[in-house]
Amino acid sequence: MRLQSDIKVRVKNKAIGGPDFLICMPLLAAERSDLFREAAAIKHLDPDLLEWRIDGYAHAGNINDSLDTLAKLRIQFSDTPLIFTCRTHKEGGIKKMTGDQRQRLYTMAITTGNLDIVDIELCNDIDFVRSIMETAGKFNVRVILSYHNFEMTPDETFIFDTLFKARDLGADIAKVAVMPKGQQDVLTLLNATLKARKQGLKIPAITMSMGPQGRLSRLAGGLFGSDITFAGGSTLSAPGQMPIEILRQGMATLYD
Amino acid sequence: MRLQSDIKVRVKNKAIGGPDFLICMPLLAAERSDLFREAAAIKHLDPDLLEWRIDGYAHAGNINDSLDTLAKLRIQFSDTPLIFTCRTHKEGGIKKMTGDQRQRLYTMAITTGNLDIVDIELCNDIDFVRSIMETAGKFNVRVILSYHNFEMTPDETFIFDTLFKARDLGADIAKVAVMPKGQQDVLTLLNATLKARKQGLKIPAITMSMGPQGRLSRLAGGLFGSDITFAGGSTLSAPGQMPIEILRQGMATLYD
Repeated sequence: MRLQSDIKVRVKNKAIGGPDFLICMPLLAAERSDLFREAAAIKHLDPDLLEWRIDGYAHAGNINDSLDTLAKLRIQFSDTPLIFTCRTHKEGGIKKMTGDQRQRLYTMAITTGNLDIVDIELCNDIDFVRSIMETAGKFNVRVILSYHNFEMTPDETFIFDTLFKARDLGADIAKVAVMPKGQQDVLTLLNATLKARKQGLKIPAITMSMGPQGRLSRLAGGLFGSDITFAGGSTLSAPGQMPIEILRQGMATLYD
Repeated sequence: MRLQSDIKVRVKNKAIGGPDFLICMPLLAAERSDLFREAAAIKHLDPDLLEWRIDGYAHAGNINDSLDTLAKLRIQFSDTPLIFTCRTHKEGGIKKMTGDQRQRLYTMAITTGNLDIVDIELCNDIDFVRSIMETAGKFNVRVILSYHNFEMTPDETFIFDTLFKARDLGADIAKVAVMPKGQQDVLTLLNATLKARKQGLKIPAITMSMGPQGRLSRLAGGLFGSDITFAGGSTLSAPGQMPIEILRQGMATLYD
């Protein structure tokens, strides 16, 4: 029933783009003790993937602290694909960091082997994106190239083109998250996703319409070509996220 | 959050087109004993509305039997709005009946006062439709004018126009149920519904994309301008219907 992607991204025991619409849970805590408290709670909920939003971590500027924390997270979630994300402030990142800081963090984190996937925004300088992708390629780390818009929903063509732009730049997974101003925008996001899937995107995609009005896309996106949805734990990393139990309950009604 | 219709149809204690996406359960049994067994099971599930699909009743040709059964159903469901439907064979009706038989059945059933709403297909002879509507008007019975297509999903314009055609003919509620051949057809149905709601349909609507692929519309249609969804009990009256408990569980994730 679910629309799978032509190319699957296999990480640990998960096939992104495969038969299951996967659920990722984000970690956003500012302090290490809170981070591991959240992680313990999340582990119990058994998400398909885990994302560490390191831009939410107060000590992201301290490389040693960050890499040590990453290593400990990896031990705690040894079987769960780990996405490492340092979101820019411009696209919803919590901590303001310079491009150099972020580049150093991504590069060093990738080289530790303690993560599986990195998420980088398309709005970054192209040399920055290429540099991270090159390092990722060497260490067998997969790349999500992403676009976020917390203000509005661009038109269907823009969303469609953005997914293909990510693919053309060499992304393993293309991501678009946009904010609806009405129910029409939710349909626009689903329409664009389905069109991209039908017209040869091939790689896995992650698309969602944020906020309360966009909740439907977090639940039903997997029917239209999205391959991962994000659910909240004790903290939510984006507006409109649902608690994982609620999301799973809803998914049980729609997916075989 | 839910998109309400401008005009509400108030029946018993329910506002069709109001804040709640209402759930109707159908009764389809061929024999009276089975019908009341089903009815007892359904009563326990407390649907917002009940539909008696009398075309599923083996004795629909016997007016006395039919009216007596209707009276007993009314007693059993005194607080639940009752929809009375004799579907034509052409649009999914189970029993083949002549136009005269159906006209007599509708007319006599309406005059008993034991029902609240009748559903008549737009494909019927226009004089037939007008005659039933005239009787319904006299007895304060509301009218659903409906279109069903179990083969395919017409384009967005056709669906949009059909909803307005029902309205223009004087329907209290407009209904369109179509069969998707892919996920795009589900979006077409939702797009058409939202467009009609945004562009002045005003009266309540019931729209759905049938079959397993259309399940999303049965769950999420209320966000896009549909006002009633149908859920199955022990029998399902159309492909893709979900058991009411499953539907309610899914609805809890999407509606405030």
